[in-house]
Amino acid sequence: MASDERDESPVSPDAGLLSPVRAGTEAEAATGDLAYLAAMLDAESALARAQARLGIVPADAAEAIAAAADPGRFDLVDLARRARDAGNPVVPLVADLRRLAGPAGPHVHRGATSQDIVDTGAMLVAARARRVVLAHLDRALDALAGLAERHRDTPMAARTLGMRALPTTFGAKAANWLLGCLDARDRLAAVELPVQLGGPAGTLDAYGDQALDLVAAYAAETGLARPVLPWHTRRTPIADLAAALALVTGALGKIATDVWLLSQSEVGEVAEAAGPGRGGSSSMAHKRNPALSTLIRSAALQVPAQVQVILAAQVAPHERPAGEWHAEWQPLRECLRLSGGAAETAAELLGGLEVSAERMRADLDDLLTVLGEDPGLGAAAVLVDRALDAYRRSRA
Amino acid sequence: MASDERDESPVSPDAGLLSPVRAGTEAEAATGDLAYLAAMLDAESALARAQARLGIVPADAAEAIAAAADPGRFDLVDLARRARDAGNPVVPLVADLRRLAGPAGPHVHRGATSQDIVDTGAMLVAARARRVVLAHLDRALDALAGLAERHRDTPMAARTLGMRALPTTFGAKAANWLLGCLDARDRLAAVELPVQLGGPAGTLDAYGDQALDLVAAYAAETGLARPVLPWHTRRTPIADLAAALALVTGALGKIATDVWLLSQSEVGEVAEAAGPGRGGSSSMAHKRNPALSTLIRSAALQVPAQVQVILAAQVAPHERPAGEWHAEWQPLRECLRLSGGAAETAAELLGGLEVSAERMRADLDDLLTVLGEDPGLGAAAVLVDRALDAYRRSRA
Amino acid sequence: MASDERDESPVSPDAGLLSPVRAGTEAEAATGDLAYLAAMLDAESALARAQARLGIVPADAAEAIAAAADPGRFDLVDLARRARDAGNPVVPLVADLRRLAGPAGPHVHRGATSQDIVDTGAMLVAARARRVVLAHLDRALDALAGLAERHRDTPMAARTLGMRALPTTFGAKAANWLLGCLDARDRLAAVELPVQLGGPAGTLDAYGDQALDLVAAYAAETGLARPVLPWHTRRTPIADLAAALALVTGALGKIATDVWLLSQSEVGEVAEAAGPGRGGSSSMAHKRNPALSTLIRSAALQVPAQVQVILAAQVAPHERPAGEWHAEWQPLRECLRLSGGAAETAAELLGGLEVSAERMRADLDDLLTVLGEDPGLGAAAVLVDRALDAYRRSRA
Amino acid sequence: MASDERDESPVSPDAGLLSPVRAGTEAEAATGDLAYLAAMLDAESALARAQARLGIVPADAAEAIAAAADPGRFDLVDLARRARDAGNPVVPLVADLRRLAGPAGPHVHRGATSQDIVDTGAMLVAARARRVVLAHLDRALDALAGLAERHRDTPMAARTLGMRALPTTFGAKAANWLLGCLDARDRLAAVELPVQLGGPAGTLDAYGDQALDLVAAYAAETGLARPVLPWHTRRTPIADLAAALALVTGALGKIATDVWLLSQSEVGEVAEAAGPGRGGSSSMAHKRNPALSTLIRSAALQVPAQVQVILAAQVAPHERPAGEWHAEWQPLRECLRLSGGAAETAAELLGGLEVSAERMRADLDDLLTVLGEDPGLGAAAVLVDRALDAYRRSRA
Repeated sequence: MASDERDESPVSPDAGLLSPVRAGTEAEAATGDLAYLAAMLDAESALARAQARLGIVPADAAEAIAAAADPGRFDLVDLARRARDAGNPVVPLVADLRRLAGPAGPHVHRGATSQDIVDTGAMLVAARARRVVLAHLDRALDALAGLAERHRDTPMAARTLGMRALPTTFGAKAANWLLGCLDARDRLAAVELPVQLGGPAGTLDAYGDQALDLVAAYAAETGLARPVLPWHTRRTPIADLAAALALVTGALGKIATDVWLLSQSEVGEVAEAAGPGRGGSSSMAHKRNPALSTLIRSAALQVPAQVQVILAAQVAPHERPAGEWHAEWQPLRECLRLSGGAAETAAELLGGLEVSAERMRADLDDLLTVLGEDPGLGAAAVLVDRALDAYRRSRA
Repeated sequence: MASDERDESPVSPDAGLLSPVRAGTEAEAATGDLAYLAAMLDAESALARAQARLGIVPADAAEAIAAAADPGRFDLVDLARRARDAGNPVVPLVADLRRLAGPAGPHVHRGATSQDIVDTGAMLVAARARRVVLAHLDRALDALAGLAERHRDTPMAARTLGMRALPTTFGAKAANWLLGCLDARDRLAAVELPVQLGGPAGTLDAYGDQALDLVAAYAAETGLARPVLPWHTRRTPIADLAAALALVTGALGKIATDVWLLSQSEVGEVAEAAGPGRGGSSSMAHKRNPALSTLIRSAALQVPAQVQVILAAQVAPHERPAGEWHAEWQPLRECLRLSGGAAETAAELLGGLEVSAERMRADLDDLLTVLGEDPGLGAAAVLVDRALDAYRRSRA
Repeated sequence: MASDERDESPVSPDAGLLSPVRAGTEAEAATGDLAYLAAMLDAESALARAQARLGIVPADAAEAIAAAADPGRFDLVDLARRARDAGNPVVPLVADLRRLAGPAGPHVHRGATSQDIVDTGAMLVAARARRVVLAHLDRALDALAGLAERHRDTPMAARTLGMRALPTTFGAKAANWLLGCLDARDRLAAVELPVQLGGPAGTLDAYGDQALDLVAAYAAETGLARPVLPWHTRRTPIADLAAALALVTGALGKIATDVWLLSQSEVGEVAEAAGPGRGGSSSMAHKRNPALSTLIRSAALQVPAQVQVILAAQVAPHERPAGEWHAEWQPLRECLRLSGGAAETAAELLGGLEVSAERMRADLDDLLTVLGEDPGLGAAAVLVDRALDAYRRSRA
Repeated sequence: MASDERDESPVSPDAGLLSPVRAGTEAEAATGDLAYLAAMLDAESALARAQARLGIVPADAAEAIAAAADPGRFDLVDLARRARDAGNPVVPLVADLRRLAGPAGPHVHRGATSQDIVDTGAMLVAARARRVVLAHLDRALDALAGLAERHRDTPMAARTLGMRALPTTFGAKAANWLLGCLDARDRLAAVELPVQLGGPAGTLDAYGDQALDLVAAYAAETGLARPVLPWHTRRTPIADLAAALALVTGALGKIATDVWLLSQSEVGEVAEAAGPGRGGSSSMAHKRNPALSTLIRSAALQVPAQVQVILAAQVAPHERPAGEWHAEWQPLRECLRLSGGAAETAAELLGGLEVSAERMRADLDDLLTVLGEDPGLGAAAVLVDRALDAYRRSRA
């Protein structure tokens, strides 16, 4: 297709139509192309400022660069297409930023390589998206703690392989959900997000004796961690982050799966909150679908495969790969926005979850009839208390 | 987050910034949210027309529905967000379409379920994107056949585990590339893309004795295949399509990997075509990077994981899953646009590939010195002829 | 660890303890290390015989090689360990076979490369395992056809997102299962399994003008297909086979998931056949677990990831990769034995499935009460007939 | 197939023929079926002893159980096949152990569920295999530190996208490898491996007020960590372990990829140590293949997909899944033994790596000629020192 034809064709970006779990969520806004563009520009600004601190570039040049680095002045679609020439978006970005920075142009991107900006930008996006994920996880944790407390002694049937097994409590189930989210939250919060700065060969060759000081200043300007070495082809930070995000969607997906199963017509022990339009069907007015659980599960079913790509991309040749690095970008974004969308959805789900102690009691009575005796609730209540203790300690 | 706040935040859709392999390609245009919206509207129009053929809805209602089904009249971002309520975009889409269709509104979506439209829409997108993929594969095949012919007798060193092994020809290498693409092309072309129509329970309950005739008419209106049964939770069509697309990126990724390795500074037996900006570096003017190969490899490294999601989603409960179906959408789109982007990129790469018979000869001579004898080219030329025969037969 | 120490440590091979879905199944026997060893020895024998046909080696040498190629005379554990030196088991295998073949030794493996034998061996194992998979699928298909016929008019509630939606029949559900297995069966049966012969550089350099005749003779001796070209680094045959096996486990996993859900305590519409020990619990005597469904699901949840490895390994450098090829072996074996184990288990499951038309009727009545009307069974019966027609045509 | 027929067919367990990266390694011995059997028996013994501590079972019964729990008295193949009835191997294991324990039989497995033993057994295997992985990583780390030190100032060309870019040092490359392994080592060492004890419903129902004390005693007996709650369907421990193992193979796979590329015929800057048979080819006497790198890469290419299965299995219904749990077993084992085999192989590779400073110098000189100037080594030496400091601190 000739490029002039192409320019006339309507641009059709993704607005989330195929990914309702994150459509319109905070995580979506934090991870869109515009967010990445802004983060890469932030990385260029921070680099210039850090270099100004050390006298590598004039202070006014750094300010001029920061002023020019306004996402609104860049054409996203055009940048994306020009990225094909070099294989990454920083080459055209730097060209445009230099032009916009006027006399300060020659000071843009000094001594850096494209990967320094793409990776630092990705870490900035990750840091911002992580705040979103953690905030929604915190809302979910609060709701879960409430469920565990309120239903500490609400008896129900435990189910194994789909069959009623023995008595437990809904509190014990909620405590397990709570602890899963808490573990995932702590794992995600502990991931270190480092700045990237190495220059073309990873040797920081352009900076002479100021190299290490510059990395420290760059870290300070971005608010990211300072790495021991440049990590162009040591992808632990990305791999570790992706794995932690899969723990988040795993913990949330577990909850959503239980809610789906407990809300089946034949079980009806829980229900998602009703609301206008929520859980509706295009064809069956009588149904109230577990729509939020479905959205969360859709995320949990996608993220592990995205993590696979990222884990595999650790096998990155030499000082910059021809593909492995580029293959990480979209899967990492998906991990961030699917987990963020799932967390926001889970907070809503758990905040409104309707629990029927009566249906739980009735199903349990059926089980006890089969058992012919009541084996009791064991340590269920004490286990709830242990989980709540862990939750409270983490909040302190 | 309250929706009014959210409306003020800048929408940041994906324009391909993180996926240069498909940025601005025909496959991107064919698979964006707008393309999906248009396809779902086409599905609704085709359904109305098919129903008009059978007298289920009045003919003028079908025309009114088709007229109303203009993508430009729908708000993508709003649809995406409202999709969260029901878990899929068809519920709000039908509501809007009914409103736009005026008096014909009650005839919209008659007897159908959301999945009928999402799945038929996805198949329409797949059919259109497949045409794009196949067209670019055909360009790549032509270029490959040219390379195999021209270099039928160009000797070079075969390399195993990275080490020079024995003589072969560049024609034999190109013949292998050719055959890989040809196999993938044939596999993709053979995948059957069926229409979806089953109604809420997969029983076509709303259509009485006309049910099977309606499916046939719907297939005819859409140009898609007629399935034996509705396939709401028999996902072979999606799984088979995804697997075929992974054969495409596998075949192209193999080529790109060889080009990357053969274009290494120390080898230099091939080079991607030079061009303004192409293969440039943000920091090193002397370099000419294998940028197109890198883009293709970035696709080949992502697609198998997307296929994993789709293959796993075959385990779809009952008559509609709570998550597995929803998890397919984005990965299938990625398979389509990554393979389409890779094919378009490969056609460009292969059309401009520079081959240095001199460097090949020199490297081979080094090997022959080590070997102390020339074992000859074996059946290399005959194998090239066999591959070209297969290519020509497929083109006939 | 010194090898003498290691020799004293107990060898602890895998006997299936962690994979009950295939423990003791025919597919397990067809895919164990001994089966691979036998297949690689068959490949060497067939190569020698094919060469004898063409006069490349003496006929009596070929017979001596075939006689020496007795798996019982080889030490599997020792071969496996010695495989580490060259990265594949054929190097030590050929050394041992040459020794055992006595005067015919120099004729062993003539002109071949290790990959010719590993790949041909894998295709022989695949061909044998495929027969097992197909045979068990046929048993499953027969059982499914029986269920669809017997329950053509057994009404039940269709369920979407876990909620009762509208009436359908168990026959329609069984027809969908049937068609899924039929599609997967046909896809698997259609995969072409070619012999591999290319020699070290893929040029068949050792065979002069007889190269193509030898490939044809080798194909005839092994019973495998004749490829257009050697496919050392064109992995379509493996990738296509793996994808087809994932369609098998997908179709079976769908059935197992439905059986699991329908056999829940609260649903009880189907049950796995009872039997001594079957479905028992180590702690709860009252339970009857859907143990066979669980086994099948365990396979369906693993295979897509194994396919991912194989699809990704298509990106195979030059004329032999340093890792991608080696990474295929175990995942392909897992695909074969998990799908074979799942098929054998599914045949048993479906042969004994207990269907409660009463429970189905009762649950449906509950739904109809909610609906306030009976929308009827639509085309359910006709759809069953269509699926049975497709089944009967495939059997003809 | 009738069981009597099956008994006559030769058992063909896996001895590693298809997985040379771990054939004969310590990790293989630590993760075979026998190791799992021993670990499950250890779990039963430890449970009995812990219960004896608390007076739940008589002390002499605990000793009798421990004595009976001798792996040599169990038939692995038979256990594996009987595991099909219940879907897990503990049901037949407990039956046999009760029989072997004579009068103490009724005290076996008291209050436990199968999953308590399978999961605790898996954690014991993981703990033992982790020691193996860490020990080999330590050997690799020592070798890497030596390389970084010795080559702190050995100049070479950095390569990006396969092209020579700018000068760096081999020390800087080794420092990056070192830090990658160090990060992975620390991540793996930090994973908590908890004991599992919950009883059938996860409520520890059989133990009354002693429940929490029993869990503590069980943890003490096994040497595993004490969890906050039973984690039957909160799979963070498994998921976190699997992700950490993927960091290990990622870090090792990065090294192996670089070694493969640097040892190419045209580069020759490093070589794997020569040795009798090592790196040999079945057909080409002149070649010295990077066989160890190939083995390591074969592991790195498989592990991420195994992790995918485990991450996805977090979505575990209710109090015990019908498949997700069972799908974890084999992939976790593969993660353990592939990473252990890769680590053992990497220690050997790095211990014997041959580095040609001359070839590095010559290639760099070619690059400098192209550049027309020498941009210098930047902070390469200081970066090496930073990595060595991190290494030494971790060893202190």
